[in-house]
Amino acid sequence: MEINRMMSLAALVKARDAGKANPELMVALCRDAIARKDDRIKAFAHVADSPSIQSDGPLAGIAIGIKDIFDTFDQPTSYGSLAYEGYQPRVDAAIVDLARRQGATIIGKTATTEFAYFKPAETVNPHNHAHTPGGSSSGSAAAVAAGMIPAAIGTQTGGSVVRPAAFCAVTGYKPSYRMLQATGMKHFAPSLDTVGLFAAGVEDVALLAALLTGRDLAVPAGEHEIDPAGIRVGLYRCGQLEGADEAMRDALTRAADLAANAGFDVGEIGEPEAMAHARDAHATIQDHEAGLSCGPDLARFRDQLSPVLIQTIERGQAIVPADYDAARRLVKRGRGATRALFGEVDILLTPSAPGAAPLGLQTTGDPRFNKLWTLMGTPTINIPGLSDGAGMPLGIQAIARFGQDKRLLGVAARLEKAFRT
Amino acid sequence: MEINRMMSLAALVKARDAGKANPELMVALCRDAIARKDDRIKAFAHVADSPSIQSDGPLAGIAIGIKDIFDTFDQPTSYGSLAYEGYQPRVDAAIVDLARRQGATIIGKTATTEFAYFKPAETVNPHNHAHTPGGSSSGSAAAVAAGMIPAAIGTQTGGSVVRPAAFCAVTGYKPSYRMLQATGMKHFAPSLDTVGLFAAGVEDVALLAALLTGRDLAVPAGEHEIDPAGIRVGLYRCGQLEGADEAMRDALTRAADLAANAGFDVGEIGEPEAMAHARDAHATIQDHEAGLSCGPDLARFRDQLSPVLIQTIERGQAIVPADYDAARRLVKRGRGATRALFGEVDILLTPSAPGAAPLGLQTTGDPRFNKLWTLMGTPTINIPGLSDGAGMPLGIQAIARFGQDKRLLGVAARLEKAFRT
Repeated sequence: MEINRMMSLAALVKARDAGKANPELMVALCRDAIARKDDRIKAFAHVADSPSIQSDGPLAGIAIGIKDIFDTFDQPTSYGSLAYEGYQPRVDAAIVDLARRQGATIIGKTATTEFAYFKPAETVNPHNHAHTPGGSSSGSAAAVAAGMIPAAIGTQTGGSVVRPAAFCAVTGYKPSYRMLQATGMKHFAPSLDTVGLFAAGVEDVALLAALLTGRDLAVPAGEHEIDPAGIRVGLYRCGQLEGADEAMRDALTRAADLAANAGFDVGEIGEPEAMAHARDAHATIQDHEAGLSCGPDLARFRDQLSPVLIQTIERGQAIVPADYDAARRLVKRGRGATRALFGEVDILLTPSAPGAAPLGLQTTGDPRFNKLWTLMGTPTINIPGLSDGAGMPLGIQAIARFGQDKRLLGVAARLEKAFRT
Repeated sequence: MEINRMMSLAALVKARDAGKANPELMVALCRDAIARKDDRIKAFAHVADSPSIQSDGPLAGIAIGIKDIFDTFDQPTSYGSLAYEGYQPRVDAAIVDLARRQGATIIGKTATTEFAYFKPAETVNPHNHAHTPGGSSSGSAAAVAAGMIPAAIGTQTGGSVVRPAAFCAVTGYKPSYRMLQATGMKHFAPSLDTVGLFAAGVEDVALLAALLTGRDLAVPAGEHEIDPAGIRVGLYRCGQLEGADEAMRDALTRAADLAANAGFDVGEIGEPEAMAHARDAHATIQDHEAGLSCGPDLARFRDQLSPVLIQTIERGQAIVPADYDAARRLVKRGRGATRALFGEVDILLTPSAPGAAPLGLQTTGDPRFNKLWTLMGTPTINIPGLSDGAGMPLGIQAIARFGQDKRLLGVAARLEKAFRT
């Protein structure tokens, strides 16, 4: 396999600001890379014919791929579904408009599973084309991993940002719930649907988050690096670990060692029972909400939906309110336990997935390590850098308290450095 | 002015179930009423040419008007905006699909202010055509009030369900946040946007809520009437009362007397400071979110938006995250205070608006009594029945703790009876 050299958003911005690159050239570079690589990777559902390139703005020249679950007024938007083939929305989703307002170029729409649920796109894993790139933000992760674009937007309802990022060895960041507005996305389960970001490294994704939101989130390499002393990092001993591959369990141990060597205060921390129960509520909440959100599609386009989606929508519609309410109560208790846990620890570490990207393109892998944090609304990030015996990427997930995105990104930047040395 | 006899949803369902009316006839009755009345009332943005009438389902024969801020696959959806004139969405909003699945007929789209914000629709108040019906759910309230349809769907981001219901003397019910899913509505401020219901009386709106959600919310008249003994009803002494008309202050006092006579445990309760501060956060939260949600429209359709909307979107886009976060913290503290307050009292009573519907159609009135409860996510309802010296309706708002929708509806049903005798 060809080794893919990723594009660094931070490096591109720096080069542009130093007059060494201009927006036209920067976008041309991406168009060229897409033309050369995407026939094999299939990361794009659509590539813009003549994308608008802006000369001004902090993201001028940055070509961003938009998961094809978000509306774009100038490109078709098919939500990974036959039912929406060729559909042309009237306006952009909020996050697309935000990117444009900061000067970005919307270079294309990245492939997604059907309605960001289970049915895979055709995208392959750039590290081994026989393996899944993960999902549902398959194309967003693969396009960045293959060095076609410096950044992409995705979404997570179960594990759809962190898992594909891990499988493709890119940085995938799911911010605190609602930090990035979801208006104009095709909703599946609105109380879970979270907009996330993909880029090569932590510095890149943090800079993108900072420029999109105007928040103090940037973690420039070398400068203002976080001081690990006194930052408590907890290896999260959840029951899911038993289902992880041996290579992944080894990687987690190695990550903990590297974190300790880097100066963090590393320990182990058990999973509170209330958080384990909350995780079990994910399916009820997701399916019930999907029954409502996607009910209109089932009514109109049943013939064009996959059996697995139809079953999920129908299962969701059959969930009675009492069961949904009980699941919400479990989540509420879980959030209380999460807040308490983050009194004892600053950052939690878990695997991003049970192992490396599975062989085959029929499934997108298992979100068991991600669902809880989507439910909790806490910021999480996949930190790449480790790999298994076959050289396939293994991702480590870091999690912080709700609203502590800046700290999460700072710690992740330091850990990424430790993992890569 | 003609006295409008409203259609009771509960009575229609009962007549149908007793074999005294059939769905075709029930819908024909509404089409006839619309044909006779809507030239003057202008409650409808669009009336279906040949609406689908279902013979089965708990809402079979019930003609529902859908605020034209929700997508409908078979009727144009213009969000009260020139920019969307003739726009035809591909699928229904979740609430529309839910109504159809229960057997309802989507009879038409009811007029809304532009994007459910300030710029009025042409709708007039059925009780006096020179007065506003309130907004933003102007058409939903007026269509029910004028006896054209038994039920309508609306939304509230500030006071857009409870206020027009009060001005038009119908029951307007804003459920607990997210009880009705908002997917497929044109969002303005997603953390505030709440789907609400309009019907003639409390029994009607409660039955509609029960049939749409499968929740135990019905409060059938005569049976299972709530026992007022031991239910603590608090007159909410917020600062806004000073800005209310004398007639409205008198009405509130009368409402309290009638509640006490009915057997409720009535007292006065002051506004906690944290709740007053939370109310002040409404504009920051709404405008910041509108800057994101409606940014795409500003970018594409500036020429077709009203000056007041453009200003609000631009003001919202200029709000820095720190100010938004500070506003969210005020809301969080307010929610804590609200929970504590509902430890001391079961139901709060306030005016639904500062007075009766203002003269003129240039504004839709003042949401000062509604914004706090939208922010808090608590269920609220307008109880009609009282009026001012000129015979214009005055609405009393009842509020319950988050999730206590059943109790709210039960108390409101009892108070409505007390107000009407």
